[in-house]
Amino acid sequence: MGHGLPDHDSLVARDARHVLHPWADLSTLGTQESLIIAEAHGIEVADSAGRTYLDAIGGMWCVTVGYGHPELVEAMAAQARKMAYFTPFGDVSSEPAARLAAMLADLTPGDLNRVQFTTGGSTAVESAVRIAHYYFASRGQAAKRHVLSRVNAYHGGTYLTASLSGKSADRTLFQYESDWVHHLESPGYDPDTSPVSAAERLDGLVAGMERAIAGIGAENIACFVAEPILASGGVLVPPPGYHEATLELCRRNDILYVSDEVVTGFGRLGHFFASEAKFGVVPDMIVTAKGLTSGYQPLGAVIVSDRVAESLAANADRDKPVFSNGFTYSGHPVACATAVANIEVMRRDDVCGHVLDVGPYFIRRLRELRSSSIVAAVRGDHLMACVECHVPGEDGPTARNQALARRVDAYCEEAGLLVRPYENLCIMSPPLIITRGEVDRIVDIMADSLARAEHDLRTGAVR
Amino acid sequence: MGHGLPDHDSLVARDARHVLHPWADLSTLGTQESLIIAEAHGIEVADSAGRTYLDAIGGMWCVTVGYGHPELVEAMAAQARKMAYFTPFGDVSSEPAARLAAMLADLTPGDLNRVQFTTGGSTAVESAVRIAHYYFASRGQAAKRHVLSRVNAYHGGTYLTASLSGKSADRTLFQYESDWVHHLESPGYDPDTSPVSAAERLDGLVAGMERAIAGIGAENIACFVAEPILASGGVLVPPPGYHEATLELCRRNDILYVSDEVVTGFGRLGHFFASEAKFGVVPDMIVTAKGLTSGYQPLGAVIVSDRVAESLAANADRDKPVFSNGFTYSGHPVACATAVANIEVMRRDDVCGHVLDVGPYFIRRLRELRSSSIVAAVRGDHLMACVECHVPGEDGPTARNQALARRVDAYCEEAGLLVRPYENLCIMSPPLIITRGEVDRIVDIMADSLARAEHDLRTGAVR
Ligand SMILES: Cc1ncc(COP(=O)(O)O)c(C=O)c1O
Ligand SMILES: Cc1ncc(COP(=O)(O)O)c(C=O)c1O
Repeated sequence: MGHGLPDHDSLVARDARHVLHPWADLSTLGTQESLIIAEAHGIEVADSAGRTYLDAIGGMWCVTVGYGHPELVEAMAAQARKMAYFTPFGDVSSEPAARLAAMLADLTPGDLNRVQFTTGGSTAVESAVRIAHYYFASRGQAAKRHVLSRVNAYHGGTYLTASLSGKSADRTLFQYESDWVHHLESPGYDPDTSPVSAAERLDGLVAGMERAIAGIGAENIACFVAEPILASGGVLVPPPGYHEATLELCRRNDILYVSDEVVTGFGRLGHFFASEAKFGVVPDMIVTAKGLTSGYQPLGAVIVSDRVAESLAANADRDKPVFSNGFTYSGHPVACATAVANIEVMRRDDVCGHVLDVGPYFIRRLRELRSSSIVAAVRGDHLMACVECHVPGEDGPTARNQALARRVDAYCEEAGLLVRPYENLCIMSPPLIITRGEVDRIVDIMADSLARAEHDLRTGAVR
Repeated sequence: MGHGLPDHDSLVARDARHVLHPWADLSTLGTQESLIIAEAHGIEVADSAGRTYLDAIGGMWCVTVGYGHPELVEAMAAQARKMAYFTPFGDVSSEPAARLAAMLADLTPGDLNRVQFTTGGSTAVESAVRIAHYYFASRGQAAKRHVLSRVNAYHGGTYLTASLSGKSADRTLFQYESDWVHHLESPGYDPDTSPVSAAERLDGLVAGMERAIAGIGAENIACFVAEPILASGGVLVPPPGYHEATLELCRRNDILYVSDEVVTGFGRLGHFFASEAKFGVVPDMIVTAKGLTSGYQPLGAVIVSDRVAESLAANADRDKPVFSNGFTYSGHPVACATAVANIEVMRRDDVCGHVLDVGPYFIRRLRELRSSSIVAAVRGDHLMACVECHVPGEDGPTARNQALARRVDAYCEEAGLLVRPYENLCIMSPPLIITRGEVDRIVDIMADSLARAEHDLRTGAVR
């Protein structure tokens, strides 16, 4: 670990000159000096200058079994050597895709047994919405094509999934679909800070959704797409009962319920999928990506209920029964083989059991940070958490609050901890294999960084 | 090769029960018996029952250096072992992404130097269109958001890219964008069969595009997205001069020209990119995927001109300069390392030089098949070709013509050659390392299969 690369400078220069990063700051395009991550093992990463960090963001919500796991690497290499690729179109398949599909059917609740593979989360959400479109059009209800999403949702980077996303910070000069995409109220509920009770909050959210459905017309709505806990939107946890109530509203109005478990799936909340295990709902479709391969490979999937899949088949256009949806790399054999190995390791090592143990400890320890005057809130569930920073008395992602969070982040990085900030939040989602000792290290560094930032604020060093 | 897997039957059963394939035939969902490809080496693949085939489709237009190439496998495994993943968001990067971006800038023409990575072709086309949207909106021309595509184009499987695609066979019960996506005439020109001269055909196409631009209004059009040769649409080659003329029309109307080189790039036409080398145009953006990793890894990219990239930076929203576009797996280090190795092997072994030699031989030999009465046309360029089948006197993808092509395909498969049919076409795009001897084997099997299908037609065995 951490020997650095001889050509660190030339890599930074090539990156600055040639890469257009996702969520790049366009005002520094061409001049930014990127952090080049060069090595990664267990829960640590090292940059090209040789500095080592504890990775508290899990790659980006995705690393489950840690970096450099020999079984995942070996499964990947073995598959590439044996059969690196062949088309998955029509009636051609591969061993890893067939095996992984059966495993996913087994891991998902209810009758969710039919898997369409994609290349990541965005393409899986795309496929889910398109399946909903086909489902209703093939039942003679082509008008039923509108989609319900929520403020603060994040569903991806394509035209459609960016339109479904509802973070105002992400709405920039791109174009967004607004004719048939609708955003319900952001459903987060924080018992620590909310002025209303959970029950009141729930009633308000359900009433709002009922009004929206009535306004748009149930006969025009294909599906509701929802993260069980909103991740990138700021680890927003809905009030108890929200998932059941929204599912019930969907059922009553013949709206398909799509659970976006790109972040909440694969153990982050202590279960392979959280929809039923944590929130008591069996959706019509579940979307997964990220943890599916522990981030080692680009892969996504939407798992569809037999009820919906059988309807697609039964009502397909008789003259043209082709399901014209999918990608060259749907079910890529190398990616699927890696996912199979990831699931096997996670099962054998009972990684979900470990998260059920260490997750509450992580949240409990993080909540101690609320004693800092610049911590507005600590939210989360198991290994999905955030610390919200603020200048005391100032609410939300104001410029000052964001500057303060950036300072906390910078101090953490200095001390060897990566918790990249999002607006005024420090978001954390460490690899699932994290130990209590490593949790303590995260909390210690965070506490110290918060203290330093608090001091800066007092002495006027933060704007 | 070809020892078969013990659990062939159980794999077929799991696939039938659990996988929803791209372009599946929905009328056989749950009962289809897929061909499970289990091994792949060089230009051959083997199914799970142990049968070996010469792969004349190159995975699906994507295999360049052949299957099981040790250098690609080793690069992939080494990167996964060293650093399997880290977020590419903001100002974080990796060695393989920085290196690959610089290589792509070097391989693309003109000032195309800025690379946004994605997970495949569809997501790269999405990014190109979204960049065009941002480009104009940031210059105060938000209305300039319409997109020009063409009938018979294929650009992907997301809502937007499926809407850009223009094959009527692919238009099914999904929803498609039609407010701001427009399809120009399909530009294929076959000198063997066309009743008009190439010059007349070109004039007609250019006049049609001019009329379309005038009708929509140049002030409303962001970009023109075009495959240099339409691949999945049936290997349609536009008449000489078409690319320059359409680029010129775009320039005159301030419309960005996006060249979709997902198939034509990476050596299939004898060059890393065909836009300038073959067709004399330097586009504003080039989209690549498939051959970029020889199909070994899901990866795509859009390479953007400095002129466009610098405009994005200069005109970005000052209060919110974030480029909110991209994917978790943009520039995945394992995929990028594989692409780097692929480019290194292709350069060292002069794979493009080989294609420039074997490609014309492939086309010349395939054209001999026109002597069969059931061959309507043979089209193509270098290692991208198709044989169009027909019942003599009957034109286009009629049910009978499609049945005939399927029969040719079945005979080829029986004889150990994979040339999956598309409608009434047998499309071929073999791995780029194919030898003259292997070309002869393809042509021999095709000739024999055509003769058998011709005989079936004569004896009434084809509907
Ligand atoms: C909940 C959720 N859905 C979808 C996506 C999009 O996934 P991807 O970036 O792999 O396309 C993300 C990515 O962060 C996500 O968090
Ligand atoms: C020209 C072209 N563009 C885009 C795509 C979409 O690529 P992908 O299937 O990797 O999303 C394809 C796929 O066949 C293609 O041929």
